[in-house]
Amino acid sequence: MNAGVEMLKNYYRRIAKFSSAVSLLYWDMQTYIPKSGGPYRAETLAEISGYVFELSTSDELGALLESANPQDEVEEAIVRVGKREFDRFRKIPRKLFEEYVKASTLCEQAWQVAKTNNNFKLVEPYFKKVVELSREIAEKLGYEIDPYDALIDQFEPGMTAQKISRLFSELREFTLSILAEIEKASPAEDVLSGVEIDAERQKKFNEWLLDYLGFDRSKGRLDVSEHPFTTPVGLNDVRITTRYISDDLKNSIFSTIHEFGHALYSLSIPEEFYGLPIGSSASYGFDESQSRFWENIVGRSLAFWRGIHKNFIQLFPEFSSYDAHQLWRSVNIVKRSYIRTEADEITYNLHIILRFELEHALINRELDVKDIPLAWNEYFEKYLGLKVPSDRLGCLQDPHWYGGSFGYFPSYTLGNLYSAQIRASLSKELPLDQLVEEGKFEAIKSWLYEKIYSKGRIYEPEVLMEKISGEPPNIAHFQNYIKAKFEHAL
Amino acid sequence: MNAGVEMLKNYYRRIAKFSSAVSLLYWDMQTYIPKSGGPYRAETLAEISGYVFELSTSDELGALLESANPQDEVEEAIVRVGKREFDRFRKIPRKLFEEYVKASTLCEQAWQVAKTNNNFKLVEPYFKKVVELSREIAEKLGYEIDPYDALIDQFEPGMTAQKISRLFSELREFTLSILAEIEKASPAEDVLSGVEIDAERQKKFNEWLLDYLGFDRSKGRLDVSEHPFTTPVGLNDVRITTRYISDDLKNSIFSTIHEFGHALYSLSIPEEFYGLPIGSSASYGFDESQSRFWENIVGRSLAFWRGIHKNFIQLFPEFSSYDAHQLWRSVNIVKRSYIRTEADEITYNLHIILRFELEHALINRELDVKDIPLAWNEYFEKYLGLKVPSDRLGCLQDPHWYGGSFGYFPSYTLGNLYSAQIRASLSKELPLDQLVEEGKFEAIKSWLYEKIYSKGRIYEPEVLMEKISGEPPNIAHFQNYIKAKFEHAL
Repeated sequence: MNAGVEMLKNYYRRIAKFSSAVSLLYWDMQTYIPKSGGPYRAETLAEISGYVFELSTSDELGALLESANPQDEVEEAIVRVGKREFDRFRKIPRKLFEEYVKASTLCEQAWQVAKTNNNFKLVEPYFKKVVELSREIAEKLGYEIDPYDALIDQFEPGMTAQKISRLFSELREFTLSILAEIEKASPAEDVLSGVEIDAERQKKFNEWLLDYLGFDRSKGRLDVSEHPFTTPVGLNDVRITTRYISDDLKNSIFSTIHEFGHALYSLSIPEEFYGLPIGSSASYGFDESQSRFWENIVGRSLAFWRGIHKNFIQLFPEFSSYDAHQLWRSVNIVKRSYIRTEADEITYNLHIILRFELEHALINRELDVKDIPLAWNEYFEKYLGLKVPSDRLGCLQDPHWYGGSFGYFPSYTLGNLYSAQIRASLSKELPLDQLVEEGKFEAIKSWLYEKIYSKGRIYEPEVLMEKISGEPPNIAHFQNYIKAKFEHAL
Repeated sequence: MNAGVEMLKNYYRRIAKFSSAVSLLYWDMQTYIPKSGGPYRAETLAEISGYVFELSTSDELGALLESANPQDEVEEAIVRVGKREFDRFRKIPRKLFEEYVKASTLCEQAWQVAKTNNNFKLVEPYFKKVVELSREIAEKLGYEIDPYDALIDQFEPGMTAQKISRLFSELREFTLSILAEIEKASPAEDVLSGVEIDAERQKKFNEWLLDYLGFDRSKGRLDVSEHPFTTPVGLNDVRITTRYISDDLKNSIFSTIHEFGHALYSLSIPEEFYGLPIGSSASYGFDESQSRFWENIVGRSLAFWRGIHKNFIQLFPEFSSYDAHQLWRSVNIVKRSYIRTEADEITYNLHIILRFELEHALINRELDVKDIPLAWNEYFEKYLGLKVPSDRLGCLQDPHWYGGSFGYFPSYTLGNLYSAQIRASLSKELPLDQLVEEGKFEAIKSWLYEKIYSKGRIYEPEVLMEKISGEPPNIAHFQNYIKAKFEHAL
């Protein structure tokens, strides 16, 4: 046993327990908290997050990292990733961090009101503060060329605005061209939407679905929240949520499968990594690759709908006249629409590209907060060809910015790209469609475990992708996947 | 504004946020946590409780208390109660505290297993450790005559083993004599037990009951746990739980009313006291006086059953042939039984007296851990006249001891006594029965607020009782209440 590394690990494990409390406080705030408990919860979250920040930037941790003397690849990764985070956090003064946490919390609350009232002006002053503080944090963190790089690096180590711009510009062209192709064909019938199904029946199906996918109930649970999310609360304890919209069955189903993907990743990271710098997913993009893998590549495949068809129509006899192929087409309708979270696999990335371009401009002071609604609507029409009728369907739809997350949005599209590349590699070794159709998910999970989950955050995303697929992230796999699915099959 | 006191308050408010996290972690552990998340949760609780302990015993807090310079009664109480707690905590070495938290958590887990297997031996070694550590804590805390005094003082300031012994011996004689009287009469029919009512219907009624009592849903919620409890999680956020046993409707109803009483007290303490040493109930006995007031004095009164009768039989038509008087008699059946939590208002105190005598002997080294089952059964037969058939129905029924709580049990009986004394005072000013029958609880709550809730923990329990009733705690009120209810009316 390596005494220096052991001391370091114990220090991290102590921090992890406070982070566990933060996660539970957050989860409860989104699920069960009585309404009037909200303001005090915000204060509690700020206080304990502040303490986690203090522990994560302490001289003690610095000394432990310096003297750790790692002996193998895993220990080296702990120290390397640990130092990386320590150095980054240390650049941010505690006071700035606390101001940022407080301003983001207040801004997210104001956003709720602004969204309800469909009025950007109501959140504008709060949001200005958040953007200013985020710019300040970017300055403190430092960067070579682009302030935005300092922020995206938190979510996707090694990624830069330049790399994303190149990638996204190629993706945009591809998307617009395939979209034009698809729009020439006759659209599928959206048989699953508009049918009233009460929350109880939806819940029953979603719970069945989780069992079918093999969600370990001794280590996780499904609840309801306004915005679906996944929170790893502690070791062997992950919470996922979904939402039930009575005339939109697809919404809860794909939210549940999506969050299942996040939860599976989190629960599959080796227990001995728990609480350490390597004890999480490789990056936000990688995390998203797993939610999208299960949601889209598995959940929106024809094989999957063949596999669940019998159970599906048993619980929902109102759809019994549709076969698996019709249901599958109905969950894959490509259509320009306003809301990101409801977008199909193709137009989804246009929503992200727009957000990336706007937030990039915001952080680099090329866009003013007050001009966001106009800029949004202009870009939206340019990329998605739709006039945005209201801010609620436009720049007020997502909480991310108002909660202070800049550099996060690209993770979604990176996740889509990664998931297709992972699919390509997996398909070389396993009969994916057959396994999915037969509901034999264990073999798929084992492959993902071996290649991805068991590695935690030992490798940077590019390195991990090379290990999985023999090449760095490559957009071609996504293009091939989409073409095969939409040009030929649907 | 008094700068010294303000700094002290801010320090306490910081501690309160970590305590809030501890409360939520505990609540979740009893309600929603996935099973495998348990062990890590125990570690998380120990870590954060340890940090709260550290903050509560810091030199910084000591200095703040010394230099506070309070200017009025409230500020004086903050400093007085704060110093009291600080001095007590400081006597316990951090290492001993952590050993105690860890040993109690492990012992409570072992107790679950022992109870399930009906085998005291399975918990005995863990429990020995807990008792030893509790004795050590009592020594560290210090006392004048009796080590047990050091422990009970945590729950009921100013109370001693000697005072309790005197009180309980009088109460025991009274109880045995009235019990003999009652047993001469013909027993009421237990019409509410043994009828199968599923959890959903029970829940519906309990939720209605909370609305009827005026439970503020924006500040609290009702969930399910194996042992009903109340946890104040944060400012304006209190959680209560109940349990649904299909053939025992009374169980959930009276648990819910009981916990409502605790929650009402907690939510009614002035907001500006929150997180401060005076920001809780006056004592555990006083807290219990409120749960018992609402459960027994209100909930088990004829007036209450007259008031709810129509709604009750509407939801439970299987009982529609019984009038309010019959239902009332059914929830007041006096019967010697094994389980404390299911005992009636009269025999309940015998269960407590037995526990007090045994734990008193344990802490004073007059009883060995290994002899507990035998001693329990012997005392039980002496006091309740029943042969205990198994440890599960005997010394393994309650979690308190195994979780390390010694000196806590007397609070239950003190709560019963206090509640009757409070009732006597309240009845001089308000037509209690009439208000209860009409479901007009606001007037009752206002009175309780003015006399009790608004005072937080400014006064010690004896002083507060004098302010409420003009005399110190006096067992006569309980005797009068019980006599009037059971000798004459039932």
